[in-house]
Amino acid sequence: MKLLRYGPPGQEKPGLLDADGNLRDLSGHVTDIAGNVLLPESLARLKALDHASLPQVAGNPRLGACVNGTGKFICIGLNYSDHAAETGATVPPEPIIFMKATSAIVGPNDTIEIPRDALKTDWEVELGVVIGKTAKYVTEDNAMDHVAGYCVINDVSERAFQADRQGQWTKGKSADTFGPTGPWLVTADEVPDPQKLPMWLEVNGHRYQNGSTVTMVYGVRYLVAYLSQFMSLQPGDIISTGTPPGVGLGQKPPVYLKPGDVVTLGIEGLGEQRQNVVQG
Amino acid sequence: MKLLRYGPPGQEKPGLLDADGNLRDLSGHVTDIAGNVLLPESLARLKALDHASLPQVAGNPRLGACVNGTGKFICIGLNYSDHAAETGATVPPEPIIFMKATSAIVGPNDTIEIPRDALKTDWEVELGVVIGKTAKYVTEDNAMDHVAGYCVINDVSERAFQADRQGQWTKGKSADTFGPTGPWLVTADEVPDPQKLPMWLEVNGHRYQNGSTVTMVYGVRYLVAYLSQFMSLQPGDIISTGTPPGVGLGQKPPVYLKPGDVVTLGIEGLGEQRQNVVQG
Repeated sequence: MKLLRYGPPGQEKPGLLDADGNLRDLSGHVTDIAGNVLLPESLARLKALDHASLPQVAGNPRLGACVNGTGKFICIGLNYSDHAAETGATVPPEPIIFMKATSAIVGPNDTIEIPRDALKTDWEVELGVVIGKTAKYVTEDNAMDHVAGYCVINDVSERAFQADRQGQWTKGKSADTFGPTGPWLVTADEVPDPQKLPMWLEVNGHRYQNGSTVTMVYGVRYLVAYLSQFMSLQPGDIISTGTPPGVGLGQKPPVYLKPGDVVTLGIEGLGEQRQNVVQG
Repeated sequence: MKLLRYGPPGQEKPGLLDADGNLRDLSGHVTDIAGNVLLPESLARLKALDHASLPQVAGNPRLGACVNGTGKFICIGLNYSDHAAETGATVPPEPIIFMKATSAIVGPNDTIEIPRDALKTDWEVELGVVIGKTAKYVTEDNAMDHVAGYCVINDVSERAFQADRQGQWTKGKSADTFGPTGPWLVTADEVPDPQKLPMWLEVNGHRYQNGSTVTMVYGVRYLVAYLSQFMSLQPGDIISTGTPPGVGLGQKPPVYLKPGDVVTLGIEGLGEQRQNVVQG
């Protein structure tokens, strides 16, 4: 299934994209795409519905983030060997974890606001993993039982805030609009191998990132098990698994976002995003 | 007011401690101590109630964290000059921000679980600031209008996870039970100067931390304004403002928590916490 949330910010309704690409309303079955709705048994119930008989949504409404009620927005740093190289770093001997503020989460096609005093606002296409069942001290063998599905994330980053304004990356990762998430949550049953997904990102039609999750250093299975040793994961939590090469910081000379830019990005099978950039 | 939440984990009801130290139920007026209940006009309504006529709560129920629905649990690193010195660091030229997982939040007297494979589990008494009104790009002049109140926090920290397991402190700050919060949220009108609060922490009756918010480097007013430049703050968000000297890491030789230990801590006017330590 491709689960989604549609409608104005803060008033999104649950829905899905059916096999023919039609947007269908799920309000009669669940109140939101969040929390316990992501449990395996709940997803099985939604899958068993006759999707063609669900109310079709008219027009072309705004999409919200494909999951709501995210308690933790956990990111993995330097998780592609070639991206680590372009930023002058080496691949860490175990995963680097940092947090984005959950208040940064927006819809996949919402505007990106460059924060005041920002100098180096950058892009990062990433595979998002949405947790479906609480995970605490899980092993790699059963880690995937805790994954509800996958989505596209743009881990927007202010490099000056992140690196030049005193330690801990969270400072440059957390501005409002810095976490476009969606368009849909593709359930895990439709993604047989999350480590073989081509991904890309363009700014004003120029392709900067052109990678694949096949070069991810620490894969989804490992990350879920690893993270669950340090903190429990709950339904709706998001793990953003790192970015392949081609960020603005890695260009020679570096290239950063400016008002008027248009960012488009996508991951095969998970859909595409499009953001206009404005000054916040 | 001293607002609180009482009852079993996940089923807490809203309440307050009246002027005579009696626990009173607020269920008839608000559903929780969270979100919009923390807005200035809502707090004013609760203050105007006749507290002596609210239902008295019988017995001595467990207390939950004094605020619910926290979207961000933001911590300030090395924010007391003498604590920075004891950890071998210098005071940073601007605040260091890191995040604790919101899933770490527990009641003030709940058990602290030492995570599996932990080596150096440590304590940190901290002044917690609870946001009452959305703050984005606010100035120091009006920062305090966005503060609902204050509480005691134990910023429990696994130093090996934090410092020896690859970058970004969030890894050692986020285990379940690592964020005892409460006993109550003391509204800002009852804390005329948050920069003059004596604070202390003992392990098994030995006093390790004995400080005051007077030696805080970046004060509450500055921090609220500063943080709001990097991310928006919402009602229920918590800022944990750093710890004075006396953490386990700073002892010679270092002292860390072990199963069976009892941690007690408090801040003048904000109440006290007591945690038993167990192996998780």
